Amino acid sequence: MTTQLEQTIQSIKPLDENAMQAARARQNELTKPPGSLGRLEVLSIQIAGITARPRPTLRRPAIITLAADHGVARQGVSAFPIEVTAQMVLNFLRGGAGINVLARHVGAEVIVADVGVAVDLPADDDLIVHKIDYGTRDLSTEPAMTREQARQSIQVGMAIAQNAIARGCDIVGTGEMGIGNTTPSSAIAAVFTGRPVRELTGRGSGVDDAGLTRKITVIEAALARHQPNPADGLDVLSKVGGFEIGGLAGVMLAAAAARVPVVVDGFISGAAALIAASLAPAVRDYMIAAHRSVEIGHRAILDHLGLHPVLDLDLRLGEGTGAALAISICQAACKVLDEMATFAEAGVSNKTS
Amino acid sequence: MTTQLEQTIQSIKPLDENAMQAARARQNELTKPPGSLGRLEVLSIQIAGITARPRPTLRRPAIITLAADHGVARQGVSAFPIEVTAQMVLNFLRGGAGINVLARHVGAEVIVADVGVAVDLPADDDLIVHKIDYGTRDLSTEPAMTREQARQSIQVGMAIAQNAIARGCDIVGTGEMGIGNTTPSSAIAAVFTGRPVRELTGRGSGVDDAGLTRKITVIEAALARHQPNPADGLDVLSKVGGFEIGGLAGVMLAAAAARVPVVVDGFISGAAALIAASLAPAVRDYMIAAHRSVEIGHRAILDHLGLHPVLDLDLRLGEGTGAALAISICQAACKVLDEMATFAEAGVSNKTS
Repeated sequence: MTTQLEQTIQSIKPLDENAMQAARARQNELTKPPGSLGRLEVLSIQIAGITARPRPTLRRPAIITLAADHGVARQGVSAFPIEVTAQMVLNFLRGGAGINVLARHVGAEVIVADVGVAVDLPADDDLIVHKIDYGTRDLSTEPAMTREQARQSIQVGMAIAQNAIARGCDIVGTGEMGIGNTTPSSAIAAVFTGRPVRELTGRGSGVDDAGLTRKITVIEAALARHQPNPADGLDVLSKVGGFEIGGLAGVMLAAAAARVPVVVDGFISGAAALIAASLAPAVRDYMIAAHRSVEIGHRAILDHLGLHPVLDLDLRLGEGTGAALAISICQAACKVLDEMATFAEAGVSNKTS
Repeated sequence: MTTQLEQTIQSIKPLDENAMQAARARQNELTKPPGSLGRLEVLSIQIAGITARPRPTLRRPAIITLAADHGVARQGVSAFPIEVTAQMVLNFLRGGAGINVLARHVGAEVIVADVGVAVDLPADDDLIVHKIDYGTRDLSTEPAMTREQARQSIQVGMAIAQNAIARGCDIVGTGEMGIGNTTPSSAIAAVFTGRPVRELTGRGSGVDDAGLTRKITVIEAALARHQPNPADGLDVLSKVGGFEIGGLAGVMLAAAAARVPVVVDGFISGAAALIAASLAPAVRDYMIAAHRSVEIGHRAILDHLGLHPVLDLDLRLGEGTGAALAISICQAACKVLDEMATFAEAGVSNKTS
């Protein structure tokens, strides 16, 4: 039986070469020295390939911010208490968080979903509730979730993205909230990159030296105990992942299947991207890395995925904040391609050589 | 007698420490780990100091794009023919250039001025004409302009910025158009940084190997002939500068004097910043470096000024394109400071430690 997940993976196609060639040719006709808009030109060509449109426009951005809790937070691996996950979801719904401000600035919708917060949140029309469970189990002592929950978390993220795209969203940013979620992210990064845990484990929201040492010890012990298989993304996600991480992997897969660019935020989103790419390597071409996080392991994740970040602003908040800013750069890139005059249209002389 | 230029220089005050302290304190109360919005936090604090307001808002951005021609362009130092300066001004006025597209994207006005184009342009309500002369003289054989013209170009830029600020503009970006203008910019960079010309001279709009060699030779010869004095900004500007470069230095000085942040675009704007900073070192605190250009000498300029660029997108178009994108980041930074909820307001628990 082919599941929804396998169907989505199979429907991810390569980038459209014809649209990319047309975009590349047009960039060289626009009234500027060829290549002089650098990354904007590269992004516009990638987005042409993603959307299969030679002059794509991005008018309806959405940030999908998934929230969930982590059993491992009980091990003292975070600077903030576990109740902050739920409190921040309420902050998102009232519009007071960083992601709200930055999404408003760039004209993006914020879609907030509870995919595994440890408590029940008050009903709210703006809150999607697809709780896989009341937080993961403590990965330092047992697998974070069952294999079935891992699959379910990915499918929940897929459904949320598919719904947004059906409503007209044409570029998606990923975001998350989950006290403790840099711990599973570092674990996932270690599994896929094969690098030592201590090179991939940072202070997250600001844990102190003792907390950082605990965090590294917890991750090393969990990897030794569970032996996650890097050839099996669902195995990694279930043993050392999180519900929002699985959900974001699903967002990425669904966006790619629908030919919608997906802007991958920071470290935790990067861990989700590793899961997604392990399930469907073709998804990487649909990803745009928003920024380079200061979280220590992020560079290794980006290198492993072959992604070059758009921004480098020393961010480490998550929520989708870097994705919001990068979405605006992607829109700018597409507007350059679509709206600039050509040499012929403007009556401007081209290069002499 | 105190001239307008000296008066402006004298009215540039240090950043407002009280506003910066208030902004810094508020950043630490907002619902995020302290410091987790990285450069956005730093920018918001700088802009608080610039504007002397603890919660500054930036609602009316303008890019000031100055156009002028260069006698040295006759030496074959550019990939494009000299008539392109005038053609591109017409493109700016019709809205088809890169700067028009990116300014529209971020909601910035583009102010276009002819401060020294080699031909008379058709009258246009949207074109400011303050022509210092019909292009500079060829700096490879004589000083680019007189000392009086150097002063005049700075004062023209000051007047344009003052007018924009009087109309409500609260953040200024710098831009330029002038075929051949990377040559004077490299010369200026060499004077102030003391580094070898070949380390500071790139391909500009895309000159070939032979053109690059000519360009380096021309600059080295001009510096040997004219001996510009790095302790005297007007001397440097007059001997190896350009009218738009002087004008942009004036824009920066006037913005600083009016406590308005000035976003310095790329390489040529950077050369103008060197002139401005040589006349008034305090102006540097009012500058925000938009981006790191791929033009080879830009890094040396930024290092000399002590500026850390906001963006790194491999841009090398000029016109103010990088400034437009960076202005949007500055606005985002101020909105974070102004609009995010505090821990107390949102009922979110703060760090446990």
